[in-house]
Amino acid sequence: MNETFDYARYDRIRPIRWTGVALELLDQRKLPFTVEYLTCTASDEVADAIHSLAVRGAPAIGIAAAWGVVLAAREVMAATSAEALEKLEPALQRLNAARPTAVNLAWALARMRAALKTAGNDWRGSLELEALAIAEEDLAANRRMGALGAALIEPGSGVLTHCNTGSLATAGFGTALGVIRAGVAQERIGKVFAGETRPWLQGARLTAWELQQDGIPATLIADSAAAHLMKTGAVKWVVVGADRICANGDTANKIGTYQLALSARHHGVKFMVVAPSSTVDMATPNGETIEIEERDPGEMFGVGGVRTVAEGIVAWNPVFDVTPAELIDAIVTEKGVIEHPNTERMRAAFG
Amino acid sequence: MNETFDYARYDRIRPIRWTGVALELLDQRKLPFTVEYLTCTASDEVADAIHSLAVRGAPAIGIAAAWGVVLAAREVMAATSAEALEKLEPALQRLNAARPTAVNLAWALARMRAALKTAGNDWRGSLELEALAIAEEDLAANRRMGALGAALIEPGSGVLTHCNTGSLATAGFGTALGVIRAGVAQERIGKVFAGETRPWLQGARLTAWELQQDGIPATLIADSAAAHLMKTGAVKWVVVGADRICANGDTANKIGTYQLALSARHHGVKFMVVAPSSTVDMATPNGETIEIEERDPGEMFGVGGVRTVAEGIVAWNPVFDVTPAELIDAIVTEKGVIEHPNTERMRAAFG
Repeated sequence: MNETFDYARYDRIRPIRWTGVALELLDQRKLPFTVEYLTCTASDEVADAIHSLAVRGAPAIGIAAAWGVVLAAREVMAATSAEALEKLEPALQRLNAARPTAVNLAWALARMRAALKTAGNDWRGSLELEALAIAEEDLAANRRMGALGAALIEPGSGVLTHCNTGSLATAGFGTALGVIRAGVAQERIGKVFAGETRPWLQGARLTAWELQQDGIPATLIADSAAAHLMKTGAVKWVVVGADRICANGDTANKIGTYQLALSARHHGVKFMVVAPSSTVDMATPNGETIEIEERDPGEMFGVGGVRTVAEGIVAWNPVFDVTPAELIDAIVTEKGVIEHPNTERMRAAFG
Repeated sequence: MNETFDYARYDRIRPIRWTGVALELLDQRKLPFTVEYLTCTASDEVADAIHSLAVRGAPAIGIAAAWGVVLAAREVMAATSAEALEKLEPALQRLNAARPTAVNLAWALARMRAALKTAGNDWRGSLELEALAIAEEDLAANRRMGALGAALIEPGSGVLTHCNTGSLATAGFGTALGVIRAGVAQERIGKVFAGETRPWLQGARLTAWELQQDGIPATLIADSAAAHLMKTGAVKWVVVGADRICANGDTANKIGTYQLALSARHHGVKFMVVAPSSTVDMATPNGETIEIEERDPGEMFGVGGVRTVAEGIVAWNPVFDVTPAELIDAIVTEKGVIEHPNTERMRAAFG
């Protein structure tokens, strides 16, 4: 579907590895300087890894949680899948509570529950196959979205992305970053800008590094420089991922996305959301009702263990915001492109 | 003019001290953890201090440069002020070149040149008196602007500010932060939010600390959280300083200001620029022709000496942007308030 793309060259990072006995997570708290996998052998370790951002990115936390259920299955004794369903529920709930905003987490756990319901005696094997399917489908979805999204971009365009939506945030290739990889390979994208994404610096620490691995030069900017950049005419598209896409197209994503969408609209820059259909939550009518995670204000008080703020200062640290559908030019999922999303178009695609 | 304000309580920080033999600058690179004055005894040391951000803030760099001329005067032999004017020119030019965007620097140097032109035999004494006048007028202007700006704010409002515009950025009291001090004292301002202001973290390191000294609680936010904050209805005004205000009201200020103005307009949040008339540059017709300083990309690569970005990453680090006049609800100078600024209203006030 994307014949010009050399996946072997460009897509080598795998943040989530299942060894058969343990889940290995590329510890994103230590990147870009230390490439180290965290080994989880129990489901609660996976929940902790999700909560502490060792693994992050909406699709990646769904996949990690699915493997967390596989590990949980080894922690219970159950003769039947019905019995297992009951005994696994506490572990499923702990995994689900690890982070609130990205719907992919609940979605993956719902798939694992459904697989268990239809499983036979080898329900442990069924769970393992389901987790593997979730991961493989994610990678395939990303490659498909890369082709669909890149096709929207006029040759020679500059693009701006936010946070990290690459191989690190998914089973591989990435969502928005997959579109950027495909777009660069097709020479549709001439220049890539990445917002540093305070406070956790996903853009600076992860996206810039990940693109560097591929030999795709990216230019880092302060999040607050985006409107000024757009005014120069250097970008034609903002391309971002999503943590939850509502039934009307409203999209929750990393804090700062909404601000980028406002600036993009003002400057005639187009705005693309790229996410697998597992991110679509048709049960949530609009962005007003999405729970926005607020993390420890301490994330705002320093960088890399160095405190930058005086003692006693108070901070507010919401880590997502909601971009209303009317500011989005295209939502790209593996099922296709929805231009100018609204309730009717979302229902036609995902109803 | 602002009878409810207890200056002795609230305004104790002095970033610029003239001892009679040296200029002492509160080293803002080391705040908030180390309160240490840098002693300059030569004009080139002052130029270096301005360039390296030991002293920063548009009014403060103007004042520091004026004292830099006083120090330069001690480095030359000249029998007449005319001879001094010629001999001081290289030092004046080095001071002027220290930073390009804030017009206050050139303005202060022009005042020092003019003072020299009309000076008698004691031209050194005249320069010292002029530098002192520049500093004292700045403090008086800030107090006046505090009263004028606070009067625009409805009681109980939340406000958001950006960068540092306080005592640290001026002779004392501050521009936008002076309005906030006055507004808090008058109970017009119920809550203060401060953007952290990447990459140099003026908001996090300086503004939050400075307000803490006054017992004014401020809540720090990531720069990219501003639009999300505005959507919650928590702020009624954005209050910022300026580095250059053009003849049509277009305003250069810290990178991110433009983005705040776009978000403010979208949410019906009002936008106030507070700056002494020394910041007004009627010779620059509009924002298109302002030189926007781009600083070392290394400022984007880490914090406090800790690198956060992989080697080899490229960054773009413009440190100012331009907010067009049409996004500004009020420009407050010590001469009065200009609502909905445009060329005609600017000319009426400053022509």
